[in-house]
Amino acid sequence: MSDVPETPLLDTVHSPADLRKLPVAQLRQLADELRAETISAVGTTGGHLGSGLGVVELTVAIHYVFDTPGDRLVWDVGHQCYPHKILTGRRDRIRTLRMGGGLSGFTKRSESEYDPFGAAHSSTSISASIGFAVANQLSGKPGKGIAVIGDGAMSAGMAYEAMNNAARAGNRLIVILNDNDMSIAPPVGGLSAYLARMVSSSEYLGLRSLAKKLTRKLSRRVHQAAEKAEEFARGMATGGTLFEELGFYYVGPIDGHNLDHLIPVLENVRDAAEGPILVHVVTKKGKGYAPAEASADKYHGVQKFDVITGTQDKAPPGPPAYQNVFGDALVAAAAKDDRICAITAAMPSGTGLDKFAKAYPERFFDVGIAEQHAVTFAAGLAAQGMRPFCAIYSTFLQRAYDQVVHDVAIQNLPVRFAIDRAGLVGADGATHAGSFDVTYLATLPNFVVMAAADEAELVHMTYTCAMHDSGPIAVRYPRGNGTGVALPAVPERLEIGKGRILREGKKVAILSLGTRLAEALKAADALDAKGLSTTVADLRFAKPLDEALIRKLLTTHEVAVTIEEGAVGGLGAHVLTLASDTGLVDAGLKIRTMRLPDMFQDQDKPDKQYAEAGLDADAIVETVLKALRHNSSAVVEGARA
Amino acid sequence: MSDVPETPLLDTVHSPADLRKLPVAQLRQLADELRAETISAVGTTGGHLGSGLGVVELTVAIHYVFDTPGDRLVWDVGHQCYPHKILTGRRDRIRTLRMGGGLSGFTKRSESEYDPFGAAHSSTSISASIGFAVANQLSGKPGKGIAVIGDGAMSAGMAYEAMNNAARAGNRLIVILNDNDMSIAPPVGGLSAYLARMVSSSEYLGLRSLAKKLTRKLSRRVHQAAEKAEEFARGMATGGTLFEELGFYYVGPIDGHNLDHLIPVLENVRDAAEGPILVHVVTKKGKGYAPAEASADKYHGVQKFDVITGTQDKAPPGPPAYQNVFGDALVAAAAKDDRICAITAAMPSGTGLDKFAKAYPERFFDVGIAEQHAVTFAAGLAAQGMRPFCAIYSTFLQRAYDQVVHDVAIQNLPVRFAIDRAGLVGADGATHAGSFDVTYLATLPNFVVMAAADEAELVHMTYTCAMHDSGPIAVRYPRGNGTGVALPAVPERLEIGKGRILREGKKVAILSLGTRLAEALKAADALDAKGLSTTVADLRFAKPLDEALIRKLLTTHEVAVTIEEGAVGGLGAHVLTLASDTGLVDAGLKIRTMRLPDMFQDQDKPDKQYAEAGLDADAIVETVLKALRHNSSAVVEGARA
Repeated sequence: MSDVPETPLLDTVHSPADLRKLPVAQLRQLADELRAETISAVGTTGGHLGSGLGVVELTVAIHYVFDTPGDRLVWDVGHQCYPHKILTGRRDRIRTLRMGGGLSGFTKRSESEYDPFGAAHSSTSISASIGFAVANQLSGKPGKGIAVIGDGAMSAGMAYEAMNNAARAGNRLIVILNDNDMSIAPPVGGLSAYLARMVSSSEYLGLRSLAKKLTRKLSRRVHQAAEKAEEFARGMATGGTLFEELGFYYVGPIDGHNLDHLIPVLENVRDAAEGPILVHVVTKKGKGYAPAEASADKYHGVQKFDVITGTQDKAPPGPPAYQNVFGDALVAAAAKDDRICAITAAMPSGTGLDKFAKAYPERFFDVGIAEQHAVTFAAGLAAQGMRPFCAIYSTFLQRAYDQVVHDVAIQNLPVRFAIDRAGLVGADGATHAGSFDVTYLATLPNFVVMAAADEAELVHMTYTCAMHDSGPIAVRYPRGNGTGVALPAVPERLEIGKGRILREGKKVAILSLGTRLAEALKAADALDAKGLSTTVADLRFAKPLDEALIRKLLTTHEVAVTIEEGAVGGLGAHVLTLASDTGLVDAGLKIRTMRLPDMFQDQDKPDKQYAEAGLDADAIVETVLKALRHNSSAVVEGARA
Repeated sequence: MSDVPETPLLDTVHSPADLRKLPVAQLRQLADELRAETISAVGTTGGHLGSGLGVVELTVAIHYVFDTPGDRLVWDVGHQCYPHKILTGRRDRIRTLRMGGGLSGFTKRSESEYDPFGAAHSSTSISASIGFAVANQLSGKPGKGIAVIGDGAMSAGMAYEAMNNAARAGNRLIVILNDNDMSIAPPVGGLSAYLARMVSSSEYLGLRSLAKKLTRKLSRRVHQAAEKAEEFARGMATGGTLFEELGFYYVGPIDGHNLDHLIPVLENVRDAAEGPILVHVVTKKGKGYAPAEASADKYHGVQKFDVITGTQDKAPPGPPAYQNVFGDALVAAAAKDDRICAITAAMPSGTGLDKFAKAYPERFFDVGIAEQHAVTFAAGLAAQGMRPFCAIYSTFLQRAYDQVVHDVAIQNLPVRFAIDRAGLVGADGATHAGSFDVTYLATLPNFVVMAAADEAELVHMTYTCAMHDSGPIAVRYPRGNGTGVALPAVPERLEIGKGRILREGKKVAILSLGTRLAEALKAADALDAKGLSTTVADLRFAKPLDEALIRKLLTTHEVAVTIEEGAVGGLGAHVLTLASDTGLVDAGLKIRTMRLPDMFQDQDKPDKQYAEAGLDADAIVETVLKALRHNSSAVVEGARA
């Protein structure tokens, strides 16, 4: 896809130890080569580009100044860590990023000792770094905890909880606020406005006064640096009352692309006697790559692209993405109902709500990375008679679980949850998989839990959510494109707790929830071909179950198999519980539940992930055949022995 | 327990509308009577006292100034709402607080239109109030959202997320920060220190300048009030940069017990053209009741007590509380292992960690109401080789679910979770029930999930957690006292995934997890007496299951029953899944899973709650008998029909 750039200096750097041997004057060249290599690598693999380009100099400076891996460096989210991976012994695999068997697109403990804490969800870095700092304090080891966190991630509550608890870590903790004024979408909220004010109106102070502020015992080096205070006139200042009120020493804002500023400031910070310290660094997302700088989202996440032109590989033309089907369906519903509101936590386009935002800006709410607030805010809207949709990825809804339980389910408020990225998600790997939502939602009283089998179903289910005022309701659907079915001109309000039969057979029943339906139908063809007449049902609802349909299927077929894109405790468990509650198991019931395996799966193409999980058509056929062959009395005898 | 006080003025107030007809000069008397009635009521019922006494004047002032219930008043946590309940039509039932069939100890939507949003967990009020404010904006209705939130609750991330999103609500949103410098335990963290600095060192400004700051169009009333600026010299000032940086207009601090200050300030705030506004009110927990003011925890939660002396009913002598057994066991383990750390989120005594805090202060961490940080901080400690215990109630661990998944389980870090208040909890009702933890934890790869059947088991399990370095592990145990078994002198390290048999029978097998074991044993006696020889096993582990034991029990008994103190998706679902995976169901298996019902149960005595849930000895016997009587072929025929 793109040629490998010439990187003579970078070629000599195999680890941060090598980097630290370089004269400081060579770091600029190193950063330039590191940037070129990052662009080239992502051109080959696709992935997160803009955020990595924004922290090239910061990455070089941190590894130059600090004693990694003894000093524990925690990249928040971790999607900006490609330059870090290149510098920490993983350059030879950098063109396998996000591929099956390749490097993770995030930091990952099992990859390198330079990744002391994995990430992918935002805003965890300060808490983890405090853990490292305090553990070292307690065990008398050297080593600081260094968190690099973006301004967007600072809007999440857990970053604030951590800041509120930072004092205990003292000068072992350094938080580097990477302020690029854009996480994925444009920034929102009070904190973001505050940071912008600081950057635009801060008084610029010299290094001398900074040093005075930072440390009682000034090192000789700091004194020397202080004499060059004027150099920093544009790069450094103090202010940051908000952080100071929370107990931090605040340093900044600093130009995060100027190594002549970054290095001495980080050295001061490293040697400071007091802490914790927050360093406010201003960077530009996509820095140094014109197509990225010019793009609206700064190449946050990209396909493979041509390095010269910046042209990204287009996804092959195909059915619409689920997120857009949802977004369109919601816009259509909102046109007829001004009670419908839409809420996203910093994912306006990822959730398909960008059209809604344009059509109904006053009913659209991007709350920033703040899932807890998103859910309880929606509960408040619902309690006052609105019809709010919370569109949150399955994995991120985990961050608002208590709000789902306490504010929505217990109060039986009609908040609608549009749960995108349900099931396995491909290149983002285990941290982004939406594996647990059916389990953690269907256990809650009052909840209705649906899964869309295709994009037409998603249209109906979005409408069903809109019309459901008697309590909480959720619809889950996967990442990626639909199956290509025709979209309904008029959405239908589905009957709550009723499934549908897609094909009728006599011997085998497949009870599917969600988009495994296509595989179930494929498996049914294969089974039929083997003379095993197969029924396929789309249950639609994990809760409430279609009890009549399930009882009928279980009792009129020789073998029944449930299949879902989720972990244990979900649909299969609920069907088994029903079979047990009603005594259907008593007389013998060949039933198997197919679900995600009891492991966290690494990134790969979704199809491969599902094959690995044992959830494709072949696996269904195999499960059915094995169940039919199964001699239950032998098993019972064996267990008795 | 205590005489009903004379309350001639309060007797005339049946609703806030009555209150608003009173001349302002009578409000002091009303507040005094309201305080006396609150003390008397809680003397009868027990419950939360100190926090209600701290907001008596605030309660009167808010209902006097604002147009409740049109203005939506949301009490954060809600445990301070007893005076509010008395004033809003529930006085006749105030002596049923927290009793079965009585008033909830928190706000509750189904109780009153004056409770627009229920609570019990902290820090939800600002998000909900923004929801009310915005819904009214959108639908063109009058009515503000008013959140009353304590300084302790402000340490939680979701309060910060909400503040960061408050601008959208404009002057429809009023946040009243009730700063009593103590939530349940003494305050911790940067925010708390900040508030203390504001209160102790703020410049005192007059009402005139406050009014100027608040509103462009001053009402006549505000002008008059402004002329009395000197009255406010001690009660009001401005400062609050932290809140201002987040986009609030800050007003305060104000003496929250002085109605002459509160009323005009709240009137100003109500009439302000700009917002959102944060009013910083300083109150004293337990105010006006000497025994409460003198007590260390300000009578946060009390037993019934004698109003004159303040003497609380003592709990009858009995076995030790589970929390203390855990605390002692952890102290013992920590004495031999300096890697053991303990973390609580604002519950040092509730979790039994108070002794640990005294013995090992440097290894003890109270992070405030900040469960998300607690878990990821623990993950950081674990990643650096410490042995951290996170002691968090089951219901509150919901608030850190994503951290449990993303930072602990995916990274397979050995964080130990001590999950107190598992199962039904009595007087605190549905919001505090620990119903879902087995479901939401046992679905996660890498996790070990235990439940203690009695306090001796808890000793062993605490030790087992301490020694388990290969991944995350959790032990759950209930609120309340143990069963009275002897505590082991030396704790035993349990084999992971191995249950135990307590009594052997032949016909019926009861598979118990947790403290329903006592009921299971009682049921076994009753069944034996009926000639149904019964085995009772304590599975100990919900994950990994003791597969060999379970297979054996299922195949060698006529009927098997699982019982647990949790909702669907937990132990029973996992046992059924095992029976299905292994083909044990094929040949017919009389198995029933007993679990919490699919409803949120209101407060009552725990025994009554479990009886209502169908989880006591009688219900076990009935379930077994019914299963034995069950004619499965008839059911199958019926379903086929």
